Amino acid sequence: MKVLKKIIIPQGFKAAGISCGIKRSGKKDLGLVYSQAPAVCAGVFTSNKVKAASLKVCIEQLKNKEARAVIVNSGNANCFVGKRGVSDAKEIIAALAGEIGVAKQSVLIASTGIIGKPMPLEAVKRGIPKVCGELSKGGLNNFAQAILTTDTFKKAVSLKIKIGAKEITISGVAKGAGMIYPRLQKASPKHATMLVFILTDAAIKKSLLQEALEDSADKSFNCITVDACTSTNDTVLLLANGAAGNKPIIKKGKDCCAFSKGLIYVCETLSQMIIDDAEGATKKIEIVVQGAKSGAEAKSAANAVANSDLFKTAMFGGNPNWGRVVSAIGAAGINMKEEKVEVCFNSQKVFNKGRINPLRNKNLLIVSKVIKVNIDLNEGNSSSKVYSCDLTPEYIKINAEYN
Amino acid sequence: MKVLKKIIIPQGFKAAGISCGIKRSGKKDLGLVYSQAPAVCAGVFTSNKVKAASLKVCIEQLKNKEARAVIVNSGNANCFVGKRGVSDAKEIIAALAGEIGVAKQSVLIASTGIIGKPMPLEAVKRGIPKVCGELSKGGLNNFAQAILTTDTFKKAVSLKIKIGAKEITISGVAKGAGMIYPRLQKASPKHATMLVFILTDAAIKKSLLQEALEDSADKSFNCITVDACTSTNDTVLLLANGAAGNKPIIKKGKDCCAFSKGLIYVCETLSQMIIDDAEGATKKIEIVVQGAKSGAEAKSAANAVANSDLFKTAMFGGNPNWGRVVSAIGAAGINMKEEKVEVCFNSQKVFNKGRINPLRNKNLLIVSKVIKVNIDLNEGNSSSKVYSCDLTPEYIKINAEYN
Repeated sequence: MKVLKKIIIPQGFKAAGISCGIKRSGKKDLGLVYSQAPAVCAGVFTSNKVKAASLKVCIEQLKNKEARAVIVNSGNANCFVGKRGVSDAKEIIAALAGEIGVAKQSVLIASTGIIGKPMPLEAVKRGIPKVCGELSKGGLNNFAQAILTTDTFKKAVSLKIKIGAKEITISGVAKGAGMIYPRLQKASPKHATMLVFILTDAAIKKSLLQEALEDSADKSFNCITVDACTSTNDTVLLLANGAAGNKPIIKKGKDCCAFSKGLIYVCETLSQMIIDDAEGATKKIEIVVQGAKSGAEAKSAANAVANSDLFKTAMFGGNPNWGRVVSAIGAAGINMKEEKVEVCFNSQKVFNKGRINPLRNKNLLIVSKVIKVNIDLNEGNSSSKVYSCDLTPEYIKINAEYN
Repeated sequence: MKVLKKIIIPQGFKAAGISCGIKRSGKKDLGLVYSQAPAVCAGVFTSNKVKAASLKVCIEQLKNKEARAVIVNSGNANCFVGKRGVSDAKEIIAALAGEIGVAKQSVLIASTGIIGKPMPLEAVKRGIPKVCGELSKGGLNNFAQAILTTDTFKKAVSLKIKIGAKEITISGVAKGAGMIYPRLQKASPKHATMLVFILTDAAIKKSLLQEALEDSADKSFNCITVDACTSTNDTVLLLANGAAGNKPIIKKGKDCCAFSKGLIYVCETLSQMIIDDAEGATKKIEIVVQGAKSGAEAKSAANAVANSDLFKTAMFGGNPNWGRVVSAIGAAGINMKEEKVEVCFNSQKVFNKGRINPLRNKNLLIVSKVIKVNIDLNEGNSSSKVYSCDLTPEYIKINAEYN
C-alpha cells in the first residue's frame, strides 16, 4: 500500500465542483463525480429513523446494478421539506442524466446543509450544465470543496495498492464537523452531516465491495463522535469502475484482503480528518477501553466516556478528571468495579484500582493537543477504540447561531 | 394540602449547618438533622455502578430499623479515595453518635463535593461538637445552606396535610446544579451530585414510606436532566418520626394517598428548583412526548431530545430548530415516522406531520425563559414529561475550571 502525498482521481473517473447559488456566501455548493464506465457501487447509511429525501432516493438508486454519476449539493439538506423533497431529488437526477447522457437509474445523489428549507431547484438545474462543463478539468479538488458546510478544511486521501500485476487507486473525500456520531449500516438510513465518497478504479464484485465497505465503516466512521448526535443523512458511497484493468476480485483471498486494507486506511484517514475538524474543538481525544467482558461492553464504555459532556469540558480545561471517566463508565450499565479499573492519561496512570496517582506534570493535559485515555476494566478480554474531542464555548457559538 | 410560604422544620426534628473548614472559601460545609424520636426512613440512590464511600455506608445504615440523625458534608464527595473512604464515613458516624448520645446504627450520612481527595477527617471531627451545639437554634435554613456546592440558591419546600384529625408537615431540602441526570432506584447506588433530605413528623409504616418515596422520585427527580451525566452519589433520604401524633398510616388508602400526594409535591418542587439552578443555564425546557407506543418509548424520546447537545445549544440561541428535535427522536430507536410527528414550541406548531410552519414570532424562543416543547408521535397512547435546560458557554466554564 502506497499512500500518496497528492490527491489523485482514480482512472476512468472525472469530478467537478462549482457554485450554483444555493449558498448565499457564493461558495461552491454543487459537486459531481462521473465514471466513464459503469461502476459497481456500495453504500452504508445512518440508522436514524428520520431520513433526508435525497438519502431515501439514493438508497433506492443503489439497488440498481451500476452507477455512472454522483451528484452532491451542500447548503441545503433536502430534509424535512415534505413530499417535494423526493420529487426534487428525482428531478435533479433526471436533469443530470439528460445532460451527460446516462440512464437515470445510474445516478446517485446526496445533500447536506440547512434542513427544512425547500431546495432552490431552479438554481441547481441551472448549475447542472455548468458543473458538467467543468468535468474535463478533472480532479477531486473542487468536488471536495463543493461538499463542505461548517468544515474548515477539505478532507481527502489517495493511495495505491498492487492487485496482481496491476496497481489500483482508492481515493476518498469526506465532509463533516458537527452532528457527528455515525451509526452506519447497510441501506438502513439516518440527518446528513457526514458525507463520504470513495472512488476506485479496481475491478471488484459488488457483494465483496459492499462487505468491505461495511467492515471498513464499522472500524472507522462508526468509531468517531463529535457531539453524540446521529445525523439523518450520514452517507458513505463507494464506486468501483474497474478502469485499472486488474484481474477482477471475485472472491475472498489475498487480493480482496489487500483491497480491504487499503479501504480501511482511506476510511480511517477520513474519519480522523473529521475529528480534526470537529466543530469548536481544541483537542482530539482517543479513548481505548480494554479488559471488557464483551466487544459490545467495551464499545459502550468507550462511547459513554467519549460522549460525556462533563468529561469533554474537563478536557477543554486540561483538567485530568479521571473521576468523570470512571463515573461515566459506571453509568453505562456494563460489568465494571471501581476497585478493578485502571485509567491512564497520555500513558500516565492516574487511577489504579481505586488508588489515585496525581499527574507528575500538572500541565500535561493543558499543553497536549491529543489526549489518549486508556481504560482497563480488568473484567475480560474485549477492547474498543473511539475518537472524540473536547466540548468548547466555540461549539456552542457555532450551533446556537446556526440555522 | 397547604404549601407554606416559609420553610419550617417538622415537629420533633432539629437541624443545623456550620463551617468546619472543608471548603477553602469558609462557606458552610457540615449539616446535621436530628430527630428526638427514632424515625423510620426510606431512601433511593443512584444506579451508577460506581458509588461514593459515604453512599455505600449510608445504604448499609438504612437497613437498620430506625434513624436518629443524618450528617452531611459538602466540599468533599468522599468518592474515589480508596479504602479509607468507608472507614472515614464510619468514623464520622461514630463521632456524631458519641456526641449526641445515639446508637451508631441510627446515623445516616451523605457527602458531596470534590472527588478523589481524602476527607479532612480531623476538621470534620472538630466540627461535630460545633454543629451539635447549633441544633438548639433550630430550623432548616443553615442545613439547606451547608449542603450546597455549585448551587446559586438554597432549595427547600414545606407543606402541611391533614391526616385524620391531625395536621402533619413534610419539608424537603435539596442540592444540585450539575452532573444531574438522576436514575434513582432502591438501594442500588450511583457520584453524589444530587442530595435530597425530606423530613416529616407523620407516623407511617416503613414499607409504605419506601414505596411512596420510590414512586415520588420516579415522577420528579427521575424526570430531570442538566447534562445527561448520572452521578455516583445521588441520594434521597426521607425520615418520618411520627411526632405529629397522627393515627399511624399502616395501609394504603385515603391517608396514605394524601401523604403520597404531599410527598410528590415536595419532590417535584425540589426537582424544579434544581433545574432552575442548572449550571450555566439561561432557559428551562419542558419536553412532553405524547402518542408514543409505550411509556418506555415516550421516556426514551423525551430524554433523547432533553439530552441532545445540538438541541440544547439551539435553545441557548433561541433558535426554533425543530429539525434537531425530530432528528434526536429518530436516533432514539423508537417507533416513529417523520410524516406522523407533530412538534410545538410554546404552543405554536412548527412541524406538522412533515409540513413546516415557521414561528409567527421569530423572537419567541429568544425572549422566553421557559420553553415548552410538545411532541406528538401519533403512534400510541403513552406520554412522558422531562425537564432540561439549555447548554451555554457558562456551563463549560464552570466544568472546565472545576476540579
